[in-house]
Amino acid sequence: MRRVAIIGHLARTAGDFNLSDMPGSAGRMDVLCRCVNAAFFLSHEFRRDVECFLVLLGEPDPPKTIRFSGGRLRYLSPDERSAGSLIKKALAVPAGTGFRESTPGVEVKKGGLSDLLCEYTFAVLDENGTDARAMATLPDAFLLSDHLDFAEEENHSLEGLERISLGPRSLHADHAITVLWNEIDRREAGW
Amino acid sequence: MRRVAIIGHLARTAGDFNLSDMPGSAGRMDVLCRCVNAAFFLSHEFRRDVECFLVLLGEPDPPKTIRFSGGRLRYLSPDERSAGSLIKKALAVPAGTGFRESTPGVEVKKGGLSDLLCEYTFAVLDENGTDARAMATLPDAFLLSDHLDFAEEENHSLEGLERISLGPRSLHADHAITVLWNEIDRREAGW
Repeated sequence: MRRVAIIGHLARTAGDFNLSDMPGSAGRMDVLCRCVNAAFFLSHEFRRDVECFLVLLGEPDPPKTIRFSGGRLRYLSPDERSAGSLIKKALAVPAGTGFRESTPGVEVKKGGLSDLLCEYTFAVLDENGTDARAMATLPDAFLLSDHLDFAEEENHSLEGLERISLGPRSLHADHAITVLWNEIDRREAGW
Repeated sequence: MRRVAIIGHLARTAGDFNLSDMPGSAGRMDVLCRCVNAAFFLSHEFRRDVECFLVLLGEPDPPKTIRFSGGRLRYLSPDERSAGSLIKKALAVPAGTGFRESTPGVEVKKGGLSDLLCEYTFAVLDENGTDARAMATLPDAFLLSDHLDFAEEENHSLEGLERISLGPRSLHADHAITVLWNEIDRREAGW
């Protein structure tokens, strides 16, 4: 199983946002929608072996975490509005301390980064980290930030985690997932 | 200069489409919008050394080509609606045989693949091609198809062009651009 988590620092935690204004009033929800696309889509297939976590830290009810599970996921198309629509439905579910399913393969709960860090050992995508291509083995869980850098408090809780770089240019979160999955695809296929 | 061209087999050639229905009535214009994003965006920068050509083959007036030029490009944000909005404005310009600018860095003209093939020597992205990482030098112009395979007639006109693969899994066009640019970034930086 490959896992990827993205922190949405301003991403709205209620389903009342407008799908036509995801960069604005939804707190850059468009960034997270593109990450969901990058996590799951192949040309004529769907990556069933992926889990993607969106950590939403915007108003009115942070933190919340939405989990997309490739094995059960349905109703997701590649366009931003499609992922946005599934996020809206998840945020309409009253969130508790455990995951509750909103549509097949999409679940929501209260809680954020600290819960995720208890459950998985993430490697952090960081342009100053070790070059992924130079690593003998790659981890299977990755943490990224959205368009904003990790906050100081977040970086504090990430101390000691492996830091991985994908190249000389700093990439958007969704592009980073695409490059990373390509590297793992190549290794899995013996390329 | 890096160049990438994407064939939009069903992409509408009039600016009357709805930004909220790009996968439907706009003929999978969402695919082309994501390609524009992948072609130009870095995390805190913009790729000024890129030209991106969209070849639109849908109704009502095919073929048309839209050229995005990174050096002069303005008003482009990463979300799909932003690229879609610039495409709508380009398609509102009466297209002639030469490029006409609609907004800074965005131009439109009548004509399609055959014109592009006269002007540039493209390498074709193809999962059965040579592994990009194994190539001593990479070309600087690349041709991709949208969600559909190249048509038989197109493949006929692409005979003799270099075919390049990016890995063992078949990728969406925008993901392919992201992986390719990463490979070129690494080479340019001596990684």
